[in-house]
Amino acid sequence: MSGKLWIVGLGPGDAAMQTPQATAALAQATDLVGYFPYVDRVPQKPGQVRHASDNREELDRARLALTLAAQGRAVAVVSSGDAGVFAMASAVFEAIDKGEPAWRALDVEVVAGISAMFAAAARLGAFLGHDFCAISLSDNLKPWPLVLRRLRAAAEAGLVMALYNPLSRARPWHLAEAFGVLREILPPAAPVVFATAVSRPDEKIDIVELAAADPARADMRTLVMVGSAATRLIARPGQRPWVYTPRFAEEASS
Amino acid sequence: MSGKLWIVGLGPGDAAMQTPQATAALAQATDLVGYFPYVDRVPQKPGQVRHASDNREELDRARLALTLAAQGRAVAVVSSGDAGVFAMASAVFEAIDKGEPAWRALDVEVVAGISAMFAAAARLGAFLGHDFCAISLSDNLKPWPLVLRRLRAAAEAGLVMALYNPLSRARPWHLAEAFGVLREILPPAAPVVFATAVSRPDEKIDIVELAAADPARADMRTLVMVGSAATRLIARPGQRPWVYTPRFAEEASS
Repeated sequence: MSGKLWIVGLGPGDAAMQTPQATAALAQATDLVGYFPYVDRVPQKPGQVRHASDNREELDRARLALTLAAQGRAVAVVSSGDAGVFAMASAVFEAIDKGEPAWRALDVEVVAGISAMFAAAARLGAFLGHDFCAISLSDNLKPWPLVLRRLRAAAEAGLVMALYNPLSRARPWHLAEAFGVLREILPPAAPVVFATAVSRPDEKIDIVELAAADPARADMRTLVMVGSAATRLIARPGQRPWVYTPRFAEEASS
Repeated sequence: MSGKLWIVGLGPGDAAMQTPQATAALAQATDLVGYFPYVDRVPQKPGQVRHASDNREELDRARLALTLAAQGRAVAVVSSGDAGVFAMASAVFEAIDKGEPAWRALDVEVVAGISAMFAAAARLGAFLGHDFCAISLSDNLKPWPLVLRRLRAAAEAGLVMALYNPLSRARPWHLAEAFGVLREILPPAAPVVFATAVSRPDEKIDIVELAAADPARADMRTLVMVGSAATRLIARPGQRPWVYTPRFAEEASS
């Protein structure tokens, strides 16, 4: 079996944030597989076959990529951000785990990318400056009470948070309920950030206080980040403040 | 004040994992500031001044960089991995917060990088495939009981973990105590990964079970990752297994 499978993180959008390793993998691929807006981000290349599909079809997409690689093709599965963060890498390994034994002999390489959470944190200053977590608010694949339990545990432990998949048309109430749980634990002034399309032409970043955070600000492309009691704003004349979480922590502040 | 300050994440070590944005910042800088092994990773450039310093001097280093930028220099502060993950970004913003008011008018740009945790997760498969956290085991800047409390909360909530700064000569017992707390909560077979120098010529990655994890395997350059009850190994003929955390979760499995 001479096929190859890369699982590539394209980064948040700006081509200058895509690694040379990712660019090299995309240049060698005979086939691109992915959610269509991500496939669209890869420059067209003559002879390269593009298999773009809709969202919510991760396992089908993973199996298609594995089948093509097993036929000897050089396949790149593309994700936005880092492929290992709420993206295609885990779907591909799930498919291998449950699929054809021969797939275990394939040459699979995960190519890390700049995640949305790190891109947003960098734009703000050092939002994730100390212990932090990343939690998906989607309940497609886990029970909603577990999501709430994780949010509560993270807030009580003083972790800064990046919240992925904050809402969808099918569950518009999720983010409001999440903010409700966090308001029971965190101070009203804890910074909340809504970051959409970071590094892209339509980038939009808003910083508000938890007490005033409006779930309606988020859409499916928004990353929501929630500071801890220690997270601080640095005011700047005529510009968005910087936001950072100090490296030091007191037991009491968490 | 016409100076510029970049805070640059160099990625884990392989030049192919450094973003073009980071490379461009380094090329424009008149001055490089950083811990000496990281400064050493940047190719020499005639006329560029290198200010390499020892570890544990983050705030002094940040103040030097800000002072140079305020004098009109174009300064790049370099970190390994992502500059915002247990690295220089938060030290620089702490220095601004407590320092000269004029520093707030400086043009500061954080350049995100591929973090050690994402590089290691990619090498393994999809270790951080679902909700995860990153916790520093260093008690230089926070009380050790708080570290243990965060570990306990993360394990009880079913988060996969990346543990930074697992030990040092001054505190060789930290990792053993951390494993002790995790063993009270996680199953004995939960995968533990010791990842050293990921993407570099001396890369070393070991996968063991939590029950058998030996703290002596880690040194100051090691990232330790701990799976949840859901994290799975995929055996492969004649090769290191892949490790991934499935996207789906049951309430009971956490």
